[in-house]
Amino acid sequence: MSNPTAAFLIIGNEVLSGRTKEGNLQVLATKLAPQGIEVRESRVVPDVESEIVTAVQALSAKYTYVFTSGGIGPTHDDITAACVTKAFNSELHEDPEARAMLLDHYGAAELTEARLKMAQVPMGARLIENPVSKAPGFWIENVLVMAGVPKIFAALVDSALPLLSGGSPVASATLVVPVGESLLADIMAQVESGFSDLTVGSYPYFRAGNVGTSIVLRSADQAALALAIDALKAALTAQGHSFEDQGIQIPRELG
Amino acid sequence: MSNPTAAFLIIGNEVLSGRTKEGNLQVLATKLAPQGIEVRESRVVPDVESEIVTAVQALSAKYTYVFTSGGIGPTHDDITAACVTKAFNSELHEDPEARAMLLDHYGAAELTEARLKMAQVPMGARLIENPVSKAPGFWIENVLVMAGVPKIFAALVDSALPLLSGGSPVASATLVVPVGESLLADIMAQVESGFSDLTVGSYPYFRAGNVGTSIVLRSADQAALALAIDALKAALTAQGHSFEDQGIQIPRELG
Repeated sequence: MSNPTAAFLIIGNEVLSGRTKEGNLQVLATKLAPQGIEVRESRVVPDVESEIVTAVQALSAKYTYVFTSGGIGPTHDDITAACVTKAFNSELHEDPEARAMLLDHYGAAELTEARLKMAQVPMGARLIENPVSKAPGFWIENVLVMAGVPKIFAALVDSALPLLSGGSPVASATLVVPVGESLLADIMAQVESGFSDLTVGSYPYFRAGNVGTSIVLRSADQAALALAIDALKAALTAQGHSFEDQGIQIPRELG
Repeated sequence: MSNPTAAFLIIGNEVLSGRTKEGNLQVLATKLAPQGIEVRESRVVPDVESEIVTAVQALSAKYTYVFTSGGIGPTHDDITAACVTKAFNSELHEDPEARAMLLDHYGAAELTEARLKMAQVPMGARLIENPVSKAPGFWIENVLVMAGVPKIFAALVDSALPLLSGGSPVASATLVVPVGESLLADIMAQVESGFSDLTVGSYPYFRAGNVGTSIVLRSADQAALALAIDALKAALTAQGHSFEDQGIQIPRELG
């Protein structure tokens, strides 16, 4: 059975304008990998209803899970909840449990109309707990809606992880070869073509005036990966290339 | 006349897996802003032909310019040139000028078959000069194809900039208010609704235990921006909020 897939939809003018540097994709990919869930696509769209609705629908139809970040705060430009609701022809309502979380955090006097907006979720949505700032994320159909602030985003993903159906983690192996990637092109293509569930990536590096290549083999099938590593090492040796074996990495959940 | 638009298509398994942190979007947005070209969408797709072809076609139809990064090196996983060629029903050919650039850089003895792959571009494409590592980017229809290595990406964008048709730079103004954004929601919505070419963004910050909000006004119409700033300041003052005016920023080309 093939692994579940994920897409990541980043909502925010500030990322497209360059004001904010996006770093949540790397966090999400790294947290999903140990569950055997691969991020297959990511998009950044502006705070525009039609763009968000279209992207949610397109990604939801194509991937097992869709994660979104951004646009779930208390202000006028926070339109993600309304857009996701529209994407699924649902209705926004004030979730009593979400209201209680906000009330507990802010107290009655500070629970303004604007803040109560953060308790508005689509009918039927499941809340995702936010240990940092309490305003929850939510999950409807196969879409998980998260805040964009990095610390809160990471906490919401952690809250959601135990609820997801996972697969086989994709293990990777890295060999570092001190020559440019063009000299290794044939070897890599040959090794990749010898295995069905294997990707071979080639990443050039430049250090202190020297060029080299990190060859990264990835597979969800650890037996195949081991065979592919052996085949690659044999081919490198046959062509007189030295290499540094950085070993196999299997993504694991952190403590 | 409205400003030209741009999309950014990032091609690479290594970005989706989390191995590589993507930073070129911010570079591209920052370099295009002084030309009055706004990045309106970005996507990350894997090294898979059908995904790349579909994304190139979709983005090319929707935006004035499409920039791509990644997948134009010498190895088997560098399939961007072939995919862009397919997206426009063109044909790959070895460009004599590109070959000459590579020959000049590597010398005849080192100009391997793998490296010559980097001279393969679609028929009719215009080359984009690469002062860092010589292998050129290229431009076909409204799609500009760049390498993903950050230093090379930035250099290729610099080479392409003088060739683009620009618009009016979007100026921005930032007011920093030392209260949470929920208390400013009404004011911001009201100011935004008063102007046609204006976006008001709200970005909470947390510093040394204090919360606050950066309010960012953006407009390509500098007269409207000045009026909007005055309206916002008046509304803040009327509600008893202090603020720090960080002034107007008009994106300018660096030296």
